[in-house]
Amino acid sequence: MAKPKKLKRERASRTVPFAAIAAELAAIGRQFYARGWVLGTSGNFSGVISRDPMRLAITSTGLDKGALDAASFIEMDDAAHVVRGNGEPSAEALLHVTIVRALGAGAVLHTHSVWSTVLSGKHAARGGIEISGYEMLKGLEGVRTHAHREWLPILENSQDMTELSGRVTNLLRENRGVHGFLLREHGLYTWGATVQEAKRHVEILEFLMEVVVRAAAMRSERGA
Amino acid sequence: MAKPKKLKRERASRTVPFAAIAAELAAIGRQFYARGWVLGTSGNFSGVISRDPMRLAITSTGLDKGALDAASFIEMDDAAHVVRGNGEPSAEALLHVTIVRALGAGAVLHTHSVWSTVLSGKHAARGGIEISGYEMLKGLEGVRTHAHREWLPILENSQDMTELSGRVTNLLRENRGVHGFLLREHGLYTWGATVQEAKRHVEILEFLMEVVVRAAAMRSERGA
Amino acid sequence: MAKPKKLKRERASRTVPFAAIAAELAAIGRQFYARGWVLGTSGNFSGVISRDPMRLAITSTGLDKGALDAASFIEMDDAAHVVRGNGEPSAEALLHVTIVRALGAGAVLHTHSVWSTVLSGKHAARGGIEISGYEMLKGLEGVRTHAHREWLPILENSQDMTELSGRVTNLLRENRGVHGFLLREHGLYTWGATVQEAKRHVEILEFLMEVVVRAAAMRSERGA
Amino acid sequence: MAKPKKLKRERASRTVPFAAIAAELAAIGRQFYARGWVLGTSGNFSGVISRDPMRLAITSTGLDKGALDAASFIEMDDAAHVVRGNGEPSAEALLHVTIVRALGAGAVLHTHSVWSTVLSGKHAARGGIEISGYEMLKGLEGVRTHAHREWLPILENSQDMTELSGRVTNLLRENRGVHGFLLREHGLYTWGATVQEAKRHVEILEFLMEVVVRAAAMRSERGA
Repeated sequence: MAKPKKLKRERASRTVPFAAIAAELAAIGRQFYARGWVLGTSGNFSGVISRDPMRLAITSTGLDKGALDAASFIEMDDAAHVVRGNGEPSAEALLHVTIVRALGAGAVLHTHSVWSTVLSGKHAARGGIEISGYEMLKGLEGVRTHAHREWLPILENSQDMTELSGRVTNLLRENRGVHGFLLREHGLYTWGATVQEAKRHVEILEFLMEVVVRAAAMRSERGA
Repeated sequence: MAKPKKLKRERASRTVPFAAIAAELAAIGRQFYARGWVLGTSGNFSGVISRDPMRLAITSTGLDKGALDAASFIEMDDAAHVVRGNGEPSAEALLHVTIVRALGAGAVLHTHSVWSTVLSGKHAARGGIEISGYEMLKGLEGVRTHAHREWLPILENSQDMTELSGRVTNLLRENRGVHGFLLREHGLYTWGATVQEAKRHVEILEFLMEVVVRAAAMRSERGA
Repeated sequence: MAKPKKLKRERASRTVPFAAIAAELAAIGRQFYARGWVLGTSGNFSGVISRDPMRLAITSTGLDKGALDAASFIEMDDAAHVVRGNGEPSAEALLHVTIVRALGAGAVLHTHSVWSTVLSGKHAARGGIEISGYEMLKGLEGVRTHAHREWLPILENSQDMTELSGRVTNLLRENRGVHGFLLREHGLYTWGATVQEAKRHVEILEFLMEVVVRAAAMRSERGA
Repeated sequence: MAKPKKLKRERASRTVPFAAIAAELAAIGRQFYARGWVLGTSGNFSGVISRDPMRLAITSTGLDKGALDAASFIEMDDAAHVVRGNGEPSAEALLHVTIVRALGAGAVLHTHSVWSTVLSGKHAARGGIEISGYEMLKGLEGVRTHAHREWLPILENSQDMTELSGRVTNLLRENRGVHGFLLREHGLYTWGATVQEAKRHVEILEFLMEVVVRAAAMRSERGA
């Protein structure tokens, strides 16, 4: 399975300290919570410590994202088994492993905003939404012009993580170059070569979804 | 009157220190104020100190929720008589007692957001609103899938707290498993086995109400 | 000209220290700025120091409300002449004097939110908007039930403060019991016996205006 | 090419210290980030150090605006070549030079909000939007009444900065007295004689765009 070139540089065997990733993700998580993107213990965040063997720092399940600190994270392997720290990974931890494996990502962030929930509900039947013409698209890694057409796929939600991981693997194989995807009435998954790149992708995709929802509310005025 | 199993573990006779509950509720209240959910002295928050005799820590009436601290709370009995601290409970304190009695809750939180006000006004004639299909529902205690159908009842508002308490008692008896209810053009009541569980329920229900209101604004575009 | 009974208790000849009022108003102003209610140097805030002679602490004109401190205030007399501090009062300072005189208010707050701007534009032709049925109304001084009908008058905006002050005087004489008024596509004036009461009135009226605007956006869905 | 009188006073040869401008712009940038106006590394901010030779302090490209400090800025000349500091200016730095040259501005701020993105998309075909009747307009330099008609031009977006700079030069020559312009589905450029005046213009124009978008969503209700 081919991976996008842009992330390949991250696939070397370097190791990033658990504590550094955990602290960086905790700060980002608290900020997202303040914006209302991960309320009610929703959302989860991971960063790659090493790739061979695969080790991820990831949020423990069920935590208040407004109170995240380094102790809120565990280290897990590619079967989502805990190898360090107290707590359990979320059932969705398997999706993080799937994305890291498929794309060589260095970090995976999952948010759960009002905008992604509304938008993924409205557009689910079309399997996704094309977003184009916005300058903000240029903040997505590798995008050079606002004329870029970003396809944001929408997958049906599921509680069966093995089945869902399989669909995510297929999705990423068949849609080279996507920067994220939505689970229907659930939320956004995006990633990056680094934690900061993944954070930027969250901000950009959340911004664009808010724009699409608000533009649709405004457009109604012209209808009649 | 039967209580939902999930809260029964809380009904033992343990005592929680007044100061600890007051400090925890004060921090939550200031956060809700920052989000605009308890403006203008609206809202009130309580936590169970003991069940036999019943003692609740509850916000004094008429306070600015942006300036809450432990001194903003009083301790009261099940007739809403003050047994510790300065201040008076809100007239709605009786609803807190009713909910603790009916469900064995350990904490009761009442918020007063724009979303709950708008939504409860629109759907009052139907007696409530069914919310289903959202992953966020899984944050409600005991819910295991987004396919869950949550019934959020709406009661007519009233200034007669004895009469209203009676209706709340009936509502909770006839709607086993609800996680909250709305008073029409007034706000949300929700609860939990612990203060943190009740806080999570506020965030989840406020989120879901915002989603429903925004989705309705967007849908208008398709009408014509 | 009769004044509403509820404010009469404030009309005694007591003196409140300038520094205390200025500090209290500065903290409120910074909070309103954070909420986006007084952007771009809009808004002004005053509190009564003494009534005979009349002395008000009021924001200097043209300041960034996010950086208010006690030095941002001047003391002025009932002709809006500065008697203490550096700076000039806004041209609208005369409206503060008018309101204090007409109602015996202890504080006058003027905000300039998106909600009041949109709402006052839509409803200007009707001369005001009636708001009723909301529990939040009970936070307005003297209101005991959500069934209360609050008339929120809307005056045409003007740059002639003498003329506008005259209209405000008439408005307050003819609409006993109002808790605030709007200037068309300009903003809200409200007041209270104390600074804290006036702050509460801002929060409640801003909340109610947001509810009315959002409910109207949602209602559109039902039109067709 | 004539310049508006109001900015001429700034065209003297005084020099403002790089560090002071950088610190002031960094604080403003963090505040705009908190409001969601410069997410995902979007936006850029500049201030004039000297005019002859022309030297600007400007944000380095690609930075997270929530973490700006003085080290986030470089000093550049009128060809956008770096003369101090680490980092590279954004490709859009040429637009800052163009605006400073055409108007004698002392600071140029570029934000990228949801409101400007939605509004510039809706009104692009008309080449701009006229905003009138709002008291908030009086916060724009030189405006004395809410009856003022502010023309907010909208330019097609482009990745060719030389071509775009030429169009901006023409726009500013042909539209004397504008206080800002929009790039389609990209964002707002505004300026001021000082950094604080430019900041005020951002707040006012962002406010007015939010008002226009929200009023349009509300108006839909009346359509049918």
